[in-house]
This record gives sequence, structure tokens and C-alpha cells, in this order.
Amino acid sequence: MKRQITQNLKLLRAKKPLVMNITNFVVMNNTANALLALGGSPMMIHAKTEVEQALKLADSLVVNIGTVDEYWAESMIIATKKAQKIGVPWVLDPIGAGISDFRNDILQELIANKPTVIRGNASEIFALNSFSTVAQKGMDSTMNSEQVIDVAQEIYRQTGAIVCISGEKDYIVGRQLVEVNNGSPMMTTVTGLGCSATAIIGGFLGIKKDVFIEAISGVSIFSLAGEMAAKKARGPGNLQSSLYDKLYLINESNIAQHLAITVH
Amino acid sequence: MKRQITQNLKLLRAKKPLVMNITNFVVMNNTANALLALGGSPMMIHAKTEVEQALKLADSLVVNIGTVDEYWAESMIIATKKAQKIGVPWVLDPIGAGISDFRNDILQELIANKPTVIRGNASEIFALNSFSTVAQKGMDSTMNSEQVIDVAQEIYRQTGAIVCISGEKDYIVGRQLVEVNNGSPMMTTVTGLGCSATAIIGGFLGIKKDVFIEAISGVSIFSLAGEMAAKKARGPGNLQSSLYDKLYLINESNIAQHLAITVH
Amino acid sequence: MKRQITQNLKLLRAKKPLVMNITNFVVMNNTANALLALGGSPMMIHAKTEVEQALKLADSLVVNIGTVDEYWAESMIIATKKAQKIGVPWVLDPIGAGISDFRNDILQELIANKPTVIRGNASEIFALNSFSTVAQKGMDSTMNSEQVIDVAQEIYRQTGAIVCISGEKDYIVGRQLVEVNNGSPMMTTVTGLGCSATAIIGGFLGIKKDVFIEAISGVSIFSLAGEMAAKKARGPGNLQSSLYDKLYLINESNIAQHLAITVH
Repeated sequence: MKRQITQNLKLLRAKKPLVMNITNFVVMNNTANALLALGGSPMMIHAKTEVEQALKLADSLVVNIGTVDEYWAESMIIATKKAQKIGVPWVLDPIGAGISDFRNDILQELIANKPTVIRGNASEIFALNSFSTVAQKGMDSTMNSEQVIDVAQEIYRQTGAIVCISGEKDYIVGRQLVEVNNGSPMMTTVTGLGCSATAIIGGFLGIKKDVFIEAISGVSIFSLAGEMAAKKARGPGNLQSSLYDKLYLINESNIAQHLAITVH
Repeated sequence: MKRQITQNLKLLRAKKPLVMNITNFVVMNNTANALLALGGSPMMIHAKTEVEQALKLADSLVVNIGTVDEYWAESMIIATKKAQKIGVPWVLDPIGAGISDFRNDILQELIANKPTVIRGNASEIFALNSFSTVAQKGMDSTMNSEQVIDVAQEIYRQTGAIVCISGEKDYIVGRQLVEVNNGSPMMTTVTGLGCSATAIIGGFLGIKKDVFIEAISGVSIFSLAGEMAAKKARGPGNLQSSLYDKLYLINESNIAQHLAITVH
Repeated sequence: MKRQITQNLKLLRAKKPLVMNITNFVVMNNTANALLALGGSPMMIHAKTEVEQALKLADSLVVNIGTVDEYWAESMIIATKKAQKIGVPWVLDPIGAGISDFRNDILQELIANKPTVIRGNASEIFALNSFSTVAQKGMDSTMNSEQVIDVAQEIYRQTGAIVCISGEKDYIVGRQLVEVNNGSPMMTTVTGLGCSATAIIGGFLGIKKDVFIEAISGVSIFSLAGEMAAKKARGPGNLQSSLYDKLYLINESNIAQHLAITVH
């Protein structure tokens, strides 16, 4: 598995996939920077008039509902319908799933357009299962990743989407169950690192070989880079800045020595 | 007073209040990070369809008109009306008060929904008094905090809102007049640090004990963290990054030794 | 030329021009910070109801179509029409020119409102010539600056706009052809540094003396500050943060010793 991830990292840096992002205002800058630092080419576009034409240029699509409103929801639905039609792989970040009927309805429509991958925290993945409002603490998870593995497997069976659960341990649920045990608790003190993980998965989807391995590569590389950045970070400001440096520098030897990945 | 502020800092970190923010595009990332670094849980939401339902989850609300337009103004009015109705404390950042009729009209409507706290620079507080366009230099103040203490006291008498004036010296105007003499001139070279102060006040309002002490806590902790960050900063980029680290690390001993607070 | 640029830097810092920005979500924070760090006073405003009144306060205007949609396009058109009418100098950043008909149409309308300066990468400047969709790789250039000097000269002749081409070498095309040979390849790994260059040009336009020298000053100061920041940067995160520090600190002696500028 480490060999395949390393191979994907090299492919991504060689190809520099063009990743279209319809994402939220909080993380737009950060996710563009995360993609650039790793070696991708981000494009942040949301005008309803433009998304379909722009998508034709893209190798993959990232959709993130963090600060969604009625207009942005329409853009996301137009773009994901087109992505499904023309075969652009896409990843969905269902931030805040379960906190409102508005958000649940949008997610239901988006998932009908067949995301290639879904990445969220445990509470979000849990909420996706029923599309109903659940006890949430805003954008933060109140559950552990382990608790929703079976929910994720059910989503995978029903929709075909690979499901990535972020948390103290990360899980990638698809044709196998994969566990990544990297990252750092300090990562929860920086906003939008989950969104950056989603963007990085989107970057790997631009390779267009094997979406399961690409999802695993995205989760692995991001968690490991975060762990490397947190190790010497004085606090969350320093961690955010250092994370881009690590995404820029991360290499085969880091993966070989420090990636803690298990295929169950 | 220092004992109460220290107590509030501990309460905030223990409770991790959920702070809903309808704020501006420039600072959305920064204010979310400031809240997270200190120990709060930010939620950035603005869809008209969603704000009322989301507000029910929140411990407090931050409204900031920096990049307001017609849609966002409606969201802010819906949310603050609801906040008033269901008793969610909220803080208003009237950025750019006085630079246009559009902005003044919105502020008039928002203040009718009874903000718990208003925080602005001296020019903004001055403009709030008349809701008329005044000589402004964009978003920067052309007056000193001292010059508008009486205006702030008048706003407090008329609206019941605690008024925080940011500047070289900060003042908190409520049942008493409190002065905070921390911070650093370099803080004016980073965008949106006033907005971050407002968000931090919003974080403390989530404690829901004594709004006056919470407003004082927000101003004090933010100005002191800024001063600590600026002390070793090479420039504004380094200051911004280091500020999050200081908000993450600030503690009882920093407050005891360095907070320069006076109750007049 | 170096003497004039140094003089402009001093003028900008003394005057602190108020620079209105209708810009994109990705870089709003960064370009405000770049302007503040250098010594300007940024104001980010886009409400259709407000842009004309706000523009009366401004010394210059920056228009950047990065994340433009239908609403923002209208704001930009209203504001630039007004700028042309009341004589506020303005700079256009045509990000993504050529990637969609939507974007090309907006650019055509904007250029009819007579930008003082246009700054883009080589692919964008090339696309401006025909307002047709061209082979693009998203937001990144697929051409070298040298290849589009004649296109830039044609745009200058037809519209009167000074054209700045960013790339490994930067060119400023106006009554003369000026080349700036600073910067660093690492700058392409941080999002929106082109946008920041545009904002800095906007800052210099606020001086309102000689727009050609102001455009040259903006390109020169930004590329040199970027080079200074990149020299010691461990990666893109560190570079972004350090760039603000360099914009804050850059001085006469840096210009004299390290600015690599040629008037052809």
C-alpha cells in the first residue's frame, strides 16, 4: 500500500491535475494553498453560468458545503450533475450534515449525483445515513470514527461512494477497510483542516487510475503531513503555516518511515 | 477583575461554546481560527433558509458587516431578530459605519434587534450615534478611543448594549467604564484583528453568566495575546500567525503579570 | 527608475492611500494584508447598493474576477463605470481569462470602462486579445511572459491600459517596455500572489501622479519582496507569512541593491 501511495504522490506532482473547487468561504484560500503546495493546480469557481464550461477543463471536482446558501447549492448541483455525466471524479465534504433541514436536503440532492468519495467527521457521516437532523455540536464531531464504520459501509453499499471518516483515527471505507493512524490532536485547533483533507483527496482523484487507492493516498498524505507539522508546532498558527511546507516537502522516505496504515 | 477574567478563560475552555458567525469574507478564516485557538467552537453560517435553525444550537452569535451586501444583510436581520427572541447573546461589529447610507441603514435595523455588545473603532462608534455618513478613511479610524467615550455611554444608555471601543487604548462601556492598555501598534498592520476581537468577545458571551465581565474578558484576552505576539514579531505576517499561538497558550500567569486593566 | 520607485514607496507610506477592492474570495484576506503591510489602507466592498458611494472615498480601485459570479460582475461594472466617470484610477486582474464565455464577456464589459492598468499572467493577457476561450490550464499560465509582449502592446495601443505581464520575468508595457527580473519560482506554490501583485499596483495608483511609474513601482516592489521572502523560506506556508513581513520592511537600500529592472 505504501508503495502505491508513493507512486500516486509522484504521479500527482508530475501531472499537476487541475482541481475545480466549489467550496466554502472559510477555507477557500487554505485548500487552494494545500493543493498548490502538494503539486496540484486548484481552480475556485462557482458562477452558475460558468461551472459546466469550466468543469470540462478539470481533472476532478471538490464540493464542500461549509458556507452553502441557496445560490451555491444550485451551482453545486449543476456541477455535480455535469461531473457525473462527463465522468469527472468528485469528492463531497458534507460539513455540518445534520445541523439543519436545508443542509440535509442539499446533501440528499448532491449524493444523488454520485460522488466518487465522501469525506467527513464521524458525526457528519452518521447524519448522512438518515438525512435527518441529529444532535450536533456545530461543525465539530461528537462521535469517534470507529462508531460509524458500519454506517460508512452502508453508504458505500448504497451509493458506491468511497467514504473517508476523519478523526483521531481515519478510516477509508470501500472495497476494503483501511485505517490511518497519523495526525495530531492539535489539528483540531485549526479551522478547515478536514476541508483541506477533502481537497487533497480531490487532488489525487485527478490522477484517474484507481479511485480507492487515490482516496487512501489523500487521507494518508494529509494526515502524515499534519503530524509532521504538528510535531514542532508552537501552536495552531504555526501549525497551519508549517502544514503547507510539509505538503510541499513530503516524500517517499517520510511515507516509508512514518505512515501508520493498516488494511483490515 | 483579573481573577474574574481568568475564571472566564477557564470556563470558556471547559465549555467550548458554539459560536455562530455571520461575518465578512476577509476575516472568516481568521476569526474561526481565533475562536478555535482560544478554545471555542466556531460555526460560520449565513443561508437565509438556515440561520434560524442553526442559531438554536448556538451559545452566542457574532454579526460583522464588513463585506455585507443585500442578501447577507437580510440573513443578519433574520438571525439577530431570532437571537433576541430566544435569548442568544450577540455581538455586533459595525465595520465601516458611516461610509455609506446602505451600511448605516443596516446598522440601524440591526441595533433595533438589541445587540448584547457592540465593538468598533472610534470612528465607527462615533458614526453609530447619528447613523449618518461621516468623514471616514475607509475601514480605519480617524479618531482616538478617548474622544468617543461619551458617545459610547450614550449608546449604552439608549440601547443597553455594552460598547467596546478599540484603539491604542481599549474601553469597555457598560455599568462601569473599564480601560485596557495592552495591544501593539503593529496590530493595525494586519487586517481584521478588530474583527477577531469581536469574535473573541462572542466566544466569551457563550459563557452566559455576566455579559459585562464577558465583554471585558474578550477585549482583555485579545489585546494581551496581541501584545504578546507582537513583542517578538518580525512583521505583520509573523504577528498574525503568532497571535493564534498566543490565544492557544495564554494563561492565568500572563493575565496576572501583564494585563493592564483599570476600572474607572 | 530606481529613484522614482523609492520615491513612490515613500509617497505611498506617507499618504496611506485608501484602496477599494472588489476582489475574489480566495485572496481577499491576503490582498488586504499585502496592502496594509506595505502601508496602504484597503477597503473590501462589493454591495451593488454601496459601491458607488464608497468609491467616492477611494484613491484607487482594484477589480479582480477570480471568483466572479453574476452579482459580483454587476458590482464590478457599476464600480468601474463610476471610476471612469469620477477619475479614480483602477487596475484589472483578469484571472482565468479565456476559460469560459462568461468570463470573457465580463472582461469585455470591464475593459470598456477603461482600466488604468491590467495585470495578468501570459495566458490571461493572450486571451484578452481575442476575448475568446483559449487552451488554458485553469488559473495557471501555459505561456511565457516574453511570448505575449506584442499582444500587450496591442492592448495598450487599443485601450490605453498599461499592461503588466507576470511570470518568470515581469514586463510592464506602456509608453516604454520595462522588464523586472526578480521574484522566485516558489511564488507559484502560493495561491493568489498574482492577485497580491495587482493589489499592490492598486496601492501605488492611489498616489495619483504618473500611472506608468506607479505600475512599475507595484510590480517591482512586489517581485522584490517576494524574492526576499523566498530566499529563506522553508516552503510555501513560510513564504506567504514572510512576504507580508518583507512588504512591511522593504526599503530604499533593498531597491538599490537588489531590484533587477531594465528599461528596453
